[in-house]
Amino acid sequence: MEFRFSDRIKDLTANAIREIFKLVAQPDIISFAGGLPANEGLPLKQVKEIADELLSSDKALKILQYGATEGYPPLLESGLEYIKRAGIYNQGFENIIAISGGQQGIDLMCKAFLNKGDCVLVEEPTYLAVLHILKTYEAVPIGVKSGDEGLDLADLEEKIKKHNPKMLYLVPTFSNPTGKTIEAGKRKAIAELCAKYKLVLLEDDPYCELRYDGERVPSIKSFDKEGYVLYNISFSKTISPGLRTALIVGHKDIIRKLTLGKQATDVHTSTLSQAIVDTYLRKGYMDPHLEKVIPLYKAKKDAMLAKIEEYFPSQIRYTKPEGGLFIWVELPSYINTKEIFIEAVQQKVAYVSGESFFPEGDVFNTLRLNFSNATLEQIDTGMKGLGDLLKNKIKE
Amino acid sequence: MEFRFSDRIKDLTANAIREIFKLVAQPDIISFAGGLPANEGLPLKQVKEIADELLSSDKALKILQYGATEGYPPLLESGLEYIKRAGIYNQGFENIIAISGGQQGIDLMCKAFLNKGDCVLVEEPTYLAVLHILKTYEAVPIGVKSGDEGLDLADLEEKIKKHNPKMLYLVPTFSNPTGKTIEAGKRKAIAELCAKYKLVLLEDDPYCELRYDGERVPSIKSFDKEGYVLYNISFSKTISPGLRTALIVGHKDIIRKLTLGKQATDVHTSTLSQAIVDTYLRKGYMDPHLEKVIPLYKAKKDAMLAKIEEYFPSQIRYTKPEGGLFIWVELPSYINTKEIFIEAVQQKVAYVSGESFFPEGDVFNTLRLNFSNATLEQIDTGMKGLGDLLKNKIKE
Repeated sequence: MEFRFSDRIKDLTANAIREIFKLVAQPDIISFAGGLPANEGLPLKQVKEIADELLSSDKALKILQYGATEGYPPLLESGLEYIKRAGIYNQGFENIIAISGGQQGIDLMCKAFLNKGDCVLVEEPTYLAVLHILKTYEAVPIGVKSGDEGLDLADLEEKIKKHNPKMLYLVPTFSNPTGKTIEAGKRKAIAELCAKYKLVLLEDDPYCELRYDGERVPSIKSFDKEGYVLYNISFSKTISPGLRTALIVGHKDIIRKLTLGKQATDVHTSTLSQAIVDTYLRKGYMDPHLEKVIPLYKAKKDAMLAKIEEYFPSQIRYTKPEGGLFIWVELPSYINTKEIFIEAVQQKVAYVSGESFFPEGDVFNTLRLNFSNATLEQIDTGMKGLGDLLKNKIKE
Repeated sequence: MEFRFSDRIKDLTANAIREIFKLVAQPDIISFAGGLPANEGLPLKQVKEIADELLSSDKALKILQYGATEGYPPLLESGLEYIKRAGIYNQGFENIIAISGGQQGIDLMCKAFLNKGDCVLVEEPTYLAVLHILKTYEAVPIGVKSGDEGLDLADLEEKIKKHNPKMLYLVPTFSNPTGKTIEAGKRKAIAELCAKYKLVLLEDDPYCELRYDGERVPSIKSFDKEGYVLYNISFSKTISPGLRTALIVGHKDIIRKLTLGKQATDVHTSTLSQAIVDTYLRKGYMDPHLEKVIPLYKAKKDAMLAKIEEYFPSQIRYTKPEGGLFIWVELPSYINTKEIFIEAVQQKVAYVSGESFFPEGDVFNTLRLNFSNATLEQIDTGMKGLGDLLKNKIKE
């Protein structure tokens, strides 16, 4: 049976991580592959209490009926308050919409800006879903270099001039996949570069609340005087990914186009999800929840770093993130992490091989480790297995 | 401030209905414009009971955590059972995905099949959101004639040959906007035509359970031997639109592409919404709910038809639907319903003028009336106001 699929989808393969999810669904595999919050860090009791209150209240009808594409008005209001934590002030209802998870923010931005063949700049490596989404728009990702000091601004400016990109995409805080954070001075410079070249930046900031060490850095959006920065803030890592709720904040003309794009896809985000997030914010549940979750995640992160020291070969390099969910490992260039993945799974441990995070898919000696979803015991066992495998691959 | 928006969105204006929603938000306007289920027909008590049970159960963690793009497995299972009501059997898990409302089904089908410039056949008039979505894919809708006997099969076949369309889109049961239903013999012929020309049909069936008179007609999908028909079934009109949950069923190769497309937009549908719909189906709440809602809607539909007879000028034609939410009115050709809309709103009554439902937007003497969301008293008052306005426009 042959169907005449669109060019954008006919050769599209699954997002690597979503496929790994299925592979590692066997209960005896220790997975460092996903980007899942810890089960024990999900605010079950609070969500249950809130859902119960909402559906018993006079808001219940509004929650079950159709809503506005822009979002559930109380959530837009509490969202405008919430983003002040990221240093973002003076935004109104015309500057915000509620979306169905942070990833929809990327999709809607692409829908609003990209024609076939358009170029988008991304940090190298970058969040793999953005590369997957760009394929569905037949757009071209171009990697901007990023070293130990983070994003290379000279390379960024050069590539802006060379490629005339429509958009820049960054996860500046506890990056997925590296865990690295761009420091404040560089954030200001990025905002200024965007203004100088009239380049739209999508600042994707799902991990900003998950800081275990160091001080909070203001968002790039907080340095944006001109309106070229769109701020995408998900509640998947701080409340619940299953609720699929996020907010996107920025210039009203862009928000208007995102709204039109969303109107043409899912009409609006589940109002029950939106109302749960709104109530959670209003009740002040975020900070107590973070106070509970952060020590949990910090312990896991520190354990994983210690196990890298203990079990991994000395010939590797790795990041030491101050927050987020991921550690990034670089191996000697002759080790292909995609090839040895199957051996790792035989050792009952899974990671994401790094090539999926590169625009060209051409870097094979890196891997991403997630520490949030495993127990400390699993981290010990899994890292030992992985360390043994990697040591076996080292040529003396 | 000038942004370089994509071709698909730079000139896109809002979906007419979503904009009317805002216009008629004033409480003193009687709106026949929307397509909202009646507030009194929303199963508040059941949803509250189900949410409470789910979030107290051992399913709660699965509901708050990330889920599979394909959907919440229990819902896929109960969904496969549910579609048997539409005469659809022998489908497996590879034939179904859960989506974020029926409209996402249209969007994902377009994403999977349409390149810029591709042609899609639609019944004339058709659901206006499909025309809006087609603009975001820079695709070309072509209208297929539809008379008192429903879709014109000769015109359909001619246009298939002439335009080589990628897709056919139909709302065959209680059509939006006309309320008309395609009879069983013609459904079989449509399925056969699709197979003959290898044409993919998206059968959008959100209203099928809302039948007030006559006998249920099997879905077109039930006549599909070859796998060219995709069946899109929303729970917005039977449970709650705010939950944004629907299912799409069809050939596994197409379902796979829809899954890849969905992976790149919202990852998965709110699991809480999916689990609520699943439990609602499993508890057998659908039929008792329909038994409660159908007499309510039937009374409103019959009242609106009676008021057309009583208050509207005799020079009009209108449909007498056996179900659904809409009545379609054709006026003498010199009356422009878009122009007189503002006068209607001044009379405190709103409808949707018909031009938005035509691919060319060139038919100005029709309007769509919704009867489900107004009270019987509002129907009387609103239809009198609208009737007076229309009578004033009649030339003797």
